[in-house]
Amino acid sequence: MASSIRVGLIGNRFMGKAHSNAYVKVGKFFDLSLPSEMKAVCGLDQNEVDAFAKRFGWERGEVDWEKLVAADDIDLVDVCTPGDTHAPIAIAAAKAGKHVFCEKPLANSLEDAKQMLAAARAAKVRHMVNFCYRRAPAVSLAKQMIADGAIGEVRQYRATYLQDWLADPCAPMSWRLVKKVAGSGAHGDLNAHAIDLARYLTGDEITEVVGELKTFVKERPWPDGSGSGVGASTAETGKKGMGEVTVDDAAIFLARFAGGAIGTFEATRMATGRKNYNRFEISGSRGSLAWNFEDMNVLEYYSADDPADRRGFRQILATEAVHPYVSAWWPPGHILGYEHGFVNGVYDLLQAIASGGEVTPDFRDGAQCVAVLDAVVASTESGSWQKVEHVD
Amino acid sequence: MASSIRVGLIGNRFMGKAHSNAYVKVGKFFDLSLPSEMKAVCGLDQNEVDAFAKRFGWERGEVDWEKLVAADDIDLVDVCTPGDTHAPIAIAAAKAGKHVFCEKPLANSLEDAKQMLAAARAAKVRHMVNFCYRRAPAVSLAKQMIADGAIGEVRQYRATYLQDWLADPCAPMSWRLVKKVAGSGAHGDLNAHAIDLARYLTGDEITEVVGELKTFVKERPWPDGSGSGVGASTAETGKKGMGEVTVDDAAIFLARFAGGAIGTFEATRMATGRKNYNRFEISGSRGSLAWNFEDMNVLEYYSADDPADRRGFRQILATEAVHPYVSAWWPPGHILGYEHGFVNGVYDLLQAIASGGEVTPDFRDGAQCVAVLDAVVASTESGSWQKVEHVD
Amino acid sequence: MASSIRVGLIGNRFMGKAHSNAYVKVGKFFDLSLPSEMKAVCGLDQNEVDAFAKRFGWERGEVDWEKLVAADDIDLVDVCTPGDTHAPIAIAAAKAGKHVFCEKPLANSLEDAKQMLAAARAAKVRHMVNFCYRRAPAVSLAKQMIADGAIGEVRQYRATYLQDWLADPCAPMSWRLVKKVAGSGAHGDLNAHAIDLARYLTGDEITEVVGELKTFVKERPWPDGSGSGVGASTAETGKKGMGEVTVDDAAIFLARFAGGAIGTFEATRMATGRKNYNRFEISGSRGSLAWNFEDMNVLEYYSADDPADRRGFRQILATEAVHPYVSAWWPPGHILGYEHGFVNGVYDLLQAIASGGEVTPDFRDGAQCVAVLDAVVASTESGSWQKVEHVD
Amino acid sequence: MASSIRVGLIGNRFMGKAHSNAYVKVGKFFDLSLPSEMKAVCGLDQNEVDAFAKRFGWERGEVDWEKLVAADDIDLVDVCTPGDTHAPIAIAAAKAGKHVFCEKPLANSLEDAKQMLAAARAAKVRHMVNFCYRRAPAVSLAKQMIADGAIGEVRQYRATYLQDWLADPCAPMSWRLVKKVAGSGAHGDLNAHAIDLARYLTGDEITEVVGELKTFVKERPWPDGSGSGVGASTAETGKKGMGEVTVDDAAIFLARFAGGAIGTFEATRMATGRKNYNRFEISGSRGSLAWNFEDMNVLEYYSADDPADRRGFRQILATEAVHPYVSAWWPPGHILGYEHGFVNGVYDLLQAIASGGEVTPDFRDGAQCVAVLDAVVASTESGSWQKVEHVD
Repeated sequence: MASSIRVGLIGNRFMGKAHSNAYVKVGKFFDLSLPSEMKAVCGLDQNEVDAFAKRFGWERGEVDWEKLVAADDIDLVDVCTPGDTHAPIAIAAAKAGKHVFCEKPLANSLEDAKQMLAAARAAKVRHMVNFCYRRAPAVSLAKQMIADGAIGEVRQYRATYLQDWLADPCAPMSWRLVKKVAGSGAHGDLNAHAIDLARYLTGDEITEVVGELKTFVKERPWPDGSGSGVGASTAETGKKGMGEVTVDDAAIFLARFAGGAIGTFEATRMATGRKNYNRFEISGSRGSLAWNFEDMNVLEYYSADDPADRRGFRQILATEAVHPYVSAWWPPGHILGYEHGFVNGVYDLLQAIASGGEVTPDFRDGAQCVAVLDAVVASTESGSWQKVEHVD
Repeated sequence: MASSIRVGLIGNRFMGKAHSNAYVKVGKFFDLSLPSEMKAVCGLDQNEVDAFAKRFGWERGEVDWEKLVAADDIDLVDVCTPGDTHAPIAIAAAKAGKHVFCEKPLANSLEDAKQMLAAARAAKVRHMVNFCYRRAPAVSLAKQMIADGAIGEVRQYRATYLQDWLADPCAPMSWRLVKKVAGSGAHGDLNAHAIDLARYLTGDEITEVVGELKTFVKERPWPDGSGSGVGASTAETGKKGMGEVTVDDAAIFLARFAGGAIGTFEATRMATGRKNYNRFEISGSRGSLAWNFEDMNVLEYYSADDPADRRGFRQILATEAVHPYVSAWWPPGHILGYEHGFVNGVYDLLQAIASGGEVTPDFRDGAQCVAVLDAVVASTESGSWQKVEHVD
Repeated sequence: MASSIRVGLIGNRFMGKAHSNAYVKVGKFFDLSLPSEMKAVCGLDQNEVDAFAKRFGWERGEVDWEKLVAADDIDLVDVCTPGDTHAPIAIAAAKAGKHVFCEKPLANSLEDAKQMLAAARAAKVRHMVNFCYRRAPAVSLAKQMIADGAIGEVRQYRATYLQDWLADPCAPMSWRLVKKVAGSGAHGDLNAHAIDLARYLTGDEITEVVGELKTFVKERPWPDGSGSGVGASTAETGKKGMGEVTVDDAAIFLARFAGGAIGTFEATRMATGRKNYNRFEISGSRGSLAWNFEDMNVLEYYSADDPADRRGFRQILATEAVHPYVSAWWPPGHILGYEHGFVNGVYDLLQAIASGGEVTPDFRDGAQCVAVLDAVVASTESGSWQKVEHVD
Repeated sequence: MASSIRVGLIGNRFMGKAHSNAYVKVGKFFDLSLPSEMKAVCGLDQNEVDAFAKRFGWERGEVDWEKLVAADDIDLVDVCTPGDTHAPIAIAAAKAGKHVFCEKPLANSLEDAKQMLAAARAAKVRHMVNFCYRRAPAVSLAKQMIADGAIGEVRQYRATYLQDWLADPCAPMSWRLVKKVAGSGAHGDLNAHAIDLARYLTGDEITEVVGELKTFVKERPWPDGSGSGVGASTAETGKKGMGEVTVDDAAIFLARFAGGAIGTFEATRMATGRKNYNRFEISGSRGSLAWNFEDMNVLEYYSADDPADRRGFRQILATEAVHPYVSAWWPPGHILGYEHGFVNGVYDLLQAIASGGEVTPDFRDGAQCVAVLDAVVASTESGSWQKVEHVD
């Protein structure tokens, strides 16, 4: 049996940094069954990736992901690249017998996602998608509470994931705005999170949807062409002048759940003043739960079982040792931030690899999320409700 | 010329009380061009309506609305009955040359609403629908600010009107749950307000919609049959046992606006913990505005024109003399409540009658709102986007 | 026995308006044991007070308070004048056998307050001070909850009453800034409320204090001299140029309670951005309660008796029929405002007069509040903790 | 010149963990002029400290702080021990020519603090106290804004630092409740932070104070005696039964500032429901600023210079690249937590050491803070206002 879990990371931009930080911290705050080793990181440019490796403590930097995926000293491949490259990398990694941790959305198409799932299952490796918000302590607590019946039967789900970095028409082009690379815009980037939280929290599946995708600003200026790296893919290298935005700025849809609940979903990068406002409110027959990432340590909870004159939404500051993951961190009231969800997730993944157990959200979760995303897109073409394919 | 405006009110339940209070207060806090007189109130039961008249200062109580509508000493008929009776009463009033103030939704069908509009126009009387939230000072301020360009071009509109009085399956039946009387459930009751606010605030029209109506609890116990009065119509008189709920508990829809904006709307009586959570958030190209009735004195405002390091949602406490309607009331910080929107609205209506000028929301606004409501219902039947009829 | 309670009001400015509104509304929303009659209102100027009387429905206007107090057709005298006139009016009223309702602070000196109390007791009339915030439903609920043990033993009390209408050095002079008339500034105006709420909510007495009074802006421009009326007293009539501010802008103090609790109090008119931010937070051994007038319908409640992972401050929207006073008003979530505390208070006073029962806060409460205010002033002179005189 | 900054840490409990994490992260997120090396950590128990060293990446563990302080391979000594040991360690470190970073409060007595300052000055080393809240980006932003005149002249300062871990009388004894070790309770632990923030933000000095210290629960059960380590000192080793609490549970005081402002301060561990509620609100002549650690990424800002109808407290989410320290971290809206203040502070300290420049809060700041703390204690003995010694 292995004496450690050796990690290879592909991607050295925003997500590469967030994942690196997680590997740095996980063993310092959690008791791991097997230690992890930060073996290799892969980027597009050797100098850049070497500097990144040195800074975050990766043993080596590489520029060929196929080589990294095949390397003998790698147990876990972590995929932090744009969506169009998830499938080839993850499938190659699984075929090489590596466990795979992949950024969301799992793939730009349901077909790709299902092939990734099939490859991971065939290889009997651990597979996980990084829906990081599941592991904010307040969100994990919400999941526990719903499972415990705290709000009764779930009837209505409201999700809004609001950002504003594209509200200004002068905000520049990037690979994230090119459909061929990113797959979609706010829809795949933000609704993916919202859909995953809905599935996770309710334990239910979305079966039908109808929606609308909207691009308010149809062309934007390319930055001066200095963009490069795996994180950037090739989409933005050397581009000049105005570029065509081929993805949605905003994506809204209605949903029906298998269990009878209904939901509204909105993702946008045009909600002026909202920075990372990933919010849900869930109405159940006996109570409600609400959460918003911008104040991520707080879970709002209303219980109709409280005495009639003392009911109200509670602001649960989920920083107590009794709350999920918190005992690894700081005392009550010493709040956590964005990065802690990543560390908590990496902890669960490493423990699952060490024990051979299950870990979620896995590639089936990732594929089912893509199935919902795709059905919304299909509904915008048909103008009518669309059934969501169920991924087995 | 008349020396006063003589009012006849039809309905002595919840809305009857709210309107009576408005007539009591309007002349004490506002300077009216013509005084108003509280002449007559009409209910189903003579004793009950007499007591009501005495309590609120109406000169007489009546039980025959046709008589009230035809009376010589009435200038303004105020209709506070269930939706199925709005059309006959309002049309009769207009034909009798009376100005008409009508509760919302204007009618249970677009056809009725258009006939009401036609009758009012033909009679050249003033006509107004009581969308009372328009005249919360914070909402009136939002309208001014949008018109002044404070948030730039409106791109996204989010409306949620959440209540929870039906979350408990034991909550009793009432006329509000009978389609024949109420027309619809949360949809007509709450989405009517949300649609009106969207039209008012954006100055734009909703042109296409797709939605979903949902009834979670399909039958409920009738109370013991003591219900009566115009407010109750005949629907709940003497009913026993379980009754069938024939209206929606919740209604959600997506909307496209003529000017290119998109919106999400939700109305529900099943949002456990939300009591009268009528909220909007409007994202514009240069800023955003948000409001929630449960804290109705506060308008939230984000301006992208603030210095880059000092941007944030402002909590404008709209209780300053410079804010709409406030100078009639109390000093800064001495907050207003639900009933003040009614008084402010009655003030505007009485002044329009005195001057012969326009007042909004008028029956065209009311009819256009019904057109949107109806298109949503149609979309639930077709399962696809539905065009909204434009009411001229 | 009397068939009604006939009211005479002295003062026709801000408080006169607020009290008039309360008499107008009380019988429309509450079931009174005896009806009240709005008999007479007294001001400084006959024309002005006549107009006021007509507007609010007082039968007559007067300019001589001694005549009003002595009139045969008055049962209850309501004193809404500046603090320096409370004592002579209230004592005369009591001696004439009238019940007395008096604005706060009860008097500008403890000696005056005690004489008022003695006169009211000797006359065996009902006496009440208008600490209106006691009867915001959320505050009355807090009182009930503390009495029921919801937060255990009270340990710490925090009160801040923040306004900002003097933050601008150009804000004009008025009688409220003249010590001879107003007695003090923020201290008597705002700390009076804060002290009363502390006494009411804890059921305990403040026994020792040490504090600081501060005047930041020492002179201000008189307005053009148009000020007049009882509300204005004579202090601001015809004054020109700059006036000396002889009262405090801000008053802060520490307190010890008889039962062992400690407290901090702050009143200010210089807290830029706070309009009527009358807030308390009470820490008990098993829970906490907090409230802020600017969102007056909400009571915040934390219970250490909730399950360990589900504790948090609840936002109780005190608008349910089970909450104090609410059943007289509107449905859940239809919020109340500033003026409703006055109506609720007048209801309790009229019922006490009708029944001959007790009503609080009475003049002993008012006098004890003045005793605390005075002890704070004494502490600013001695620079040390000062005992508070106990009023029997 | 040195090619790196070699760090020795003393203390491996709560603060030892927080500081270790800061050294781990600082070079990964910031560009350091000189790299830092995690050389040695010192605790009471060799096995325990070795495990700690391995976990966090310290090269070696030690149990003799005098040896660590004297070691040739240490440039910076970081003191994370209870307050009674700060002075001997810091003075020895300075005498050995080491830079010193010390936890707060700087010392348990002003005399000790002044000697520490003198030693550091004599040795010409960098010295810094870890008032970590200064470097929450929202707080640093507040400092910049006040310095830029955003709120005009500071008039009133309100500080409350509320925790509740001692509200339960069964919460156990620890060294923090023993005066000989901890110096004081909430006062030194929490008011130290509040005082430092007040001095930092206003740029002013507190010159006079009057206060109250209160112990509500006078004895508590010792845990089973397993406590050990430098973090625990010897106070809690092997203690059994009930222990006497010799420090305050709560400490409140009033303050006068040199520049004319006044302030209220409260620190408590008995505020049921508040976990780490370190809050300030500052009222200036043109605006206000407020902040609360439990939502530490938000700075509240009111400007009287906004248009009259658009004024309100802004919720500035201080997560933009233009805000202090943020560009080192995550994109807008991806919030930071408790630990980031430590990393930001270590960054500034390491840069100051590298450049030879100044860094604050230094030992003079720490000593001045102790002077205020001491004056409050003196005032509780005299029962009157006490002058604060000025530390040069």
